[in-house]
Amino acid sequence: MGQTLTEKILDDHLVEGELETGEEIGIEIDQVLTQDTTGTMVWLQFEAMGLDEVQTEIAAQYCDHQTYQFDFKNTDDHRFLRSAAGTYGAHFSRPGNGICHNVHRENFAAPGKTLLGSDSHTPTPGGLGELAIGAGGIDVTVAMGGAPYYIEMPEIVSVRLEGELPEWATAKDVILELLRRLSVKGGVGKILEYTGPGVETLTAPERMTITNMGTELGATTSIFPTDEQTEDYLERVGRGEEYVELQPDDDAEYDDEIVVDLSDLEPLIAQPSMPDKVVPVSEVAGESVEQVIVGSCTNGGYEDILPVAKMLEGRETSMETETIVAPGSKQASEMLAREGWVAEMMAAGVNFSEATCGACIGIGHVPASDSVSLRTFNRNFEGRSGIEDDNVYLCSPEVAAAASIAGEIVDPRDLADELGDLEDPGVELPDEYDGSKTDLISPDEAVDDELIKGPNIGDVPIRDQLGSEIEGDALLKMEDNITTDHIIPATQDILMYRSNVPKLSEFTLSRVDETFAERALEADGGFLVAGENYGQGSSREHAALCPMYLGIEGVLAQSFARIHRANLFNFGIVPLTIDEETYANIDQGDEIEVVDDVYEAVTTGQEEFTVRINDDYEVTATLDASERERDILAAGGKLAWTKEQAEESGAAPADD
Amino acid sequence: MGQTLTEKILDDHLVEGELETGEEIGIEIDQVLTQDTTGTMVWLQFEAMGLDEVQTEIAAQYCDHQTYQFDFKNTDDHRFLRSAAGTYGAHFSRPGNGICHNVHRENFAAPGKTLLGSDSHTPTPGGLGELAIGAGGIDVTVAMGGAPYYIEMPEIVSVRLEGELPEWATAKDVILELLRRLSVKGGVGKILEYTGPGVETLTAPERMTITNMGTELGATTSIFPTDEQTEDYLERVGRGEEYVELQPDDDAEYDDEIVVDLSDLEPLIAQPSMPDKVVPVSEVAGESVEQVIVGSCTNGGYEDILPVAKMLEGRETSMETETIVAPGSKQASEMLAREGWVAEMMAAGVNFSEATCGACIGIGHVPASDSVSLRTFNRNFEGRSGIEDDNVYLCSPEVAAAASIAGEIVDPRDLADELGDLEDPGVELPDEYDGSKTDLISPDEAVDDELIKGPNIGDVPIRDQLGSEIEGDALLKMEDNITTDHIIPATQDILMYRSNVPKLSEFTLSRVDETFAERALEADGGFLVAGENYGQGSSREHAALCPMYLGIEGVLAQSFARIHRANLFNFGIVPLTIDEETYANIDQGDEIEVVDDVYEAVTTGQEEFTVRINDDYEVTATLDASERERDILAAGGKLAWTKEQAEESGAAPADD
Repeated sequence: MGQTLTEKILDDHLVEGELETGEEIGIEIDQVLTQDTTGTMVWLQFEAMGLDEVQTEIAAQYCDHQTYQFDFKNTDDHRFLRSAAGTYGAHFSRPGNGICHNVHRENFAAPGKTLLGSDSHTPTPGGLGELAIGAGGIDVTVAMGGAPYYIEMPEIVSVRLEGELPEWATAKDVILELLRRLSVKGGVGKILEYTGPGVETLTAPERMTITNMGTELGATTSIFPTDEQTEDYLERVGRGEEYVELQPDDDAEYDDEIVVDLSDLEPLIAQPSMPDKVVPVSEVAGESVEQVIVGSCTNGGYEDILPVAKMLEGRETSMETETIVAPGSKQASEMLAREGWVAEMMAAGVNFSEATCGACIGIGHVPASDSVSLRTFNRNFEGRSGIEDDNVYLCSPEVAAAASIAGEIVDPRDLADELGDLEDPGVELPDEYDGSKTDLISPDEAVDDELIKGPNIGDVPIRDQLGSEIEGDALLKMEDNITTDHIIPATQDILMYRSNVPKLSEFTLSRVDETFAERALEADGGFLVAGENYGQGSSREHAALCPMYLGIEGVLAQSFARIHRANLFNFGIVPLTIDEETYANIDQGDEIEVVDDVYEAVTTGQEEFTVRINDDYEVTATLDASERERDILAAGGKLAWTKEQAEESGAAPADD
Repeated sequence: MGQTLTEKILDDHLVEGELETGEEIGIEIDQVLTQDTTGTMVWLQFEAMGLDEVQTEIAAQYCDHQTYQFDFKNTDDHRFLRSAAGTYGAHFSRPGNGICHNVHRENFAAPGKTLLGSDSHTPTPGGLGELAIGAGGIDVTVAMGGAPYYIEMPEIVSVRLEGELPEWATAKDVILELLRRLSVKGGVGKILEYTGPGVETLTAPERMTITNMGTELGATTSIFPTDEQTEDYLERVGRGEEYVELQPDDDAEYDDEIVVDLSDLEPLIAQPSMPDKVVPVSEVAGESVEQVIVGSCTNGGYEDILPVAKMLEGRETSMETETIVAPGSKQASEMLAREGWVAEMMAAGVNFSEATCGACIGIGHVPASDSVSLRTFNRNFEGRSGIEDDNVYLCSPEVAAAASIAGEIVDPRDLADELGDLEDPGVELPDEYDGSKTDLISPDEAVDDELIKGPNIGDVPIRDQLGSEIEGDALLKMEDNITTDHIIPATQDILMYRSNVPKLSEFTLSRVDETFAERALEADGGFLVAGENYGQGSSREHAALCPMYLGIEGVLAQSFARIHRANLFNFGIVPLTIDEETYANIDQGDEIEVVDDVYEAVTTGQEEFTVRINDDYEVTATLDASERERDILAAGGKLAWTKEQAEESGAAPADD
């Protein structure tokens, strides 16, 4: 039987297990990336594990989330990260150099390699045929130490592209269409492999917009085959020699197939406040727009901003609409500046900002109250923009530019009709991506050889070994689709404590219930209860680390988002799956007791647990976990487990 | 007897009084400016007074302080300001369009005109022969309503410039030299009028660096005569027709003269944490620098950034030094982008940011803990950068660029010797300042005709008429040189409440004593005690408004900074001057009682007040106030007084 492209890459990196859906496999990791809000914990854990040098081919530390440095704690974090990268042998991308995914694709992403990143949009270079997976920071730490990455073998779904995009439809509309059809849960447990004749009509940057935002489907990752488009892109970024042709076998079998006819697509838009609330732009046309932002890892490349610049050239942005452009990388900024496009955008009324994640995680350019913001980003979870009750729409750069000109949501085709001289700018790649590399410091050039810790950079808490008894109250009952933004918000007032767990924990789930953190600390043990898709969104491990710090011992949910579920194991919190009826019956405040001897049940592979509610009735909850996950959970989390392993083997874990 | 240039302009605008030092004069105001952190209160007061249209030739509302919009409250403020400018007939400069002083000088500043601005660096266009004075917001409100501005006629001091600047010495070094000689109190009660043969060697932008930072001397304003340099600049900004030749009479008499031989100057630097701690750069050479920032209203013009770009072209910034360039105006950004300089700076490692005040007031790019930051700004008061115990140095753009290259403080002359190919870039003006005006919305183009208030935009508190008795505790005793940054910090967590007085007041003097605000509210009445130069720094009227809200009735200080003293009258707080011995004898917590009938004493012109301390001994305190100031104080502040006046005259105050 032939192999899918995914299977080929996995096979090539397989260290443990077999490529059978649902089985746990261990794979070798070639590249890792971290960023500033997850990276501090990665390196603190690297230090705590006693590791002394990065073992992967490439490790890259980016500073992209809090590049505005609102607080000295942010600047201290960046300095710490530079020192950690220098000390342990990683590349360091300075604040202002751009978003990790953009800088990574420009400099390191390569077909056939595996990438593990402590950021949920790590799948971006899937557009270049790299198998790129987002994970919790501690998984990245361990991989960076040379250990395999373990994952349950996902289903592999073929997304068959046919036809060609018509005028004004873009790569963003491809992924918005998939979100419309599949919802934010539609990709859970799956790898989306793009196939079909439509693939070759998309340039590599367009493919990366699609793989990037595949994260919003909940997919483990997304990947494209490689071809002339891939080679062409790699040549333009000066790494043509890294091209490898990668295609699935003709007789490859997929677990499922979805067909998208590109020629049927039109400009789409995700309405507030979920990326899958997708409708044609024309359906919401006429809505006044107070803010337009172009940028992010989804649509912040040179190729994304150039169309906006072309559309705005010689025109003026609406006086009622603030238009901000924050490129995904300084390379993009520099090239656009050199070619005069930055000046053109400024002349049109654009506020041209630093290369940053920034507004996408609520850092800067927070929308005004009771206003509409149109963004080329990948997420519009309620409140993520930095204001509760926000109205954030997601769209392509072209739709964003059209709104900036019109001051309201408008289908760019209609605007083109109205203006007469507005043309679809299309997709244009530069002959050469020739931006400077000054801000990317290689391990050889590193200026630090020891860690520099500011006063806000604390130690990593470690949980004790799992006990036999778990009981406590249902401290909080939540609904479906709780995101990691709900669990630990990324707004500035909170983000700056990412390296300071006791302080950060005070904000745990504060967006759901302000009293939670205090109640949890007082209770000293207890449970969280949630509906479907608990922990979707960003990969941030603090969403498990902080509940752990507060004493939470278990989460009962109808289902878990992939990365967050892994993070729960990694921080010694027992993730138990419950059915809809059980969910409905449990109330906040109920007393919950796991009847089984938990340590023994976990370590012996028991799947069904008996849970007694209010000492009144019993229900069944399921622990779906691999042997390795059970070992980690029993040890009290991955940090404890890795140290244990190292002690048992008598060697540094880097030699595992 | 001949007139000084200052006297000529004052004479031309005199509405009340005589031009005799120390006498109160009323002058007509031609232009006003406000910015986003003082402007919201200006317009709320404009609304509260029932005024309905701007009466000055030019009124301009800029958004420059919080352009990163960290919180929706900032964005709401900007929207409110746009609506207020539109409703009442002011120009509106959108966030991202640049710093008020830079945009004002490019678009409106004109020789012979008077400008009143609610920002302490309003004197900037003094470099073009405009008489420009910083004031509290309420003074600006009233002036905008058409009423005269009242001020005690300052001494007029001639600053005689001789010679010509040598290589690597700049306009910044002229003002740093004056600060070295005169200290931050040296200009109090004075207008500095530049004279002598050295004047013509300085371009208009260089002059504006000097007049801008004259604020740090405590001067009422600074002014240059006009000449070919002025005309040349006005022609390049497209307003040559506004040129007027303005020179002092040959036999003008000055109250004092200071001589500066430009040819004696060398690169200077202000050490932490006061702008007058000035030494030659060479004295502190070798100090490691972690952050360099180029920008601000002092050195953020095209002419300031161009030398930096030239020095960095083809070089790399130090890997240990983060270098940020935030231009003073988008026009400067656009021109530098169009000419390729932005790309060159990016290539060298510069993080190129929005046109903003930003970091200069602790908004973004806060230095790392225990690190050195070198900035081309005008102030380095301790903590202003956003972190307590900061180490901020102030210098010219050339010295900043040299540090960025070297990674440490270095005299650029020494760096030039070392590198061999580094030349003094000199001062170069563009043929034409041809940036777009898209972001400056004129009253004719306005899109709003009513105020848009977000939920954080509150009402203006009004104090009752002054009573007969004032007594209470000395709630806080402070040292010399307390700045308005100490009284109401401008960091983001606090700044966003500028339109919400009850909330903002909680932070009053928190940098001196965290318990103060709560104690003051509880005490419901009481005094502040301070040493010399109380209230120096920014013009922010919140530094008087918030103590008023907390119930403070009097301030006993050895001396007051000019703008803050006016703000105290404007908000109904009695400013009493005490001598050094009295200051030494009063302790925090002492009971203070003004023995006189305060209302009567204030309204009848009494200067000496008897103050009883702890019911134990008596001291004398002085109220130095004009009749008008006494009327305002008695009424309970300027807002109450203006309403009173309007009611008495039966007319809107705009007709005063």
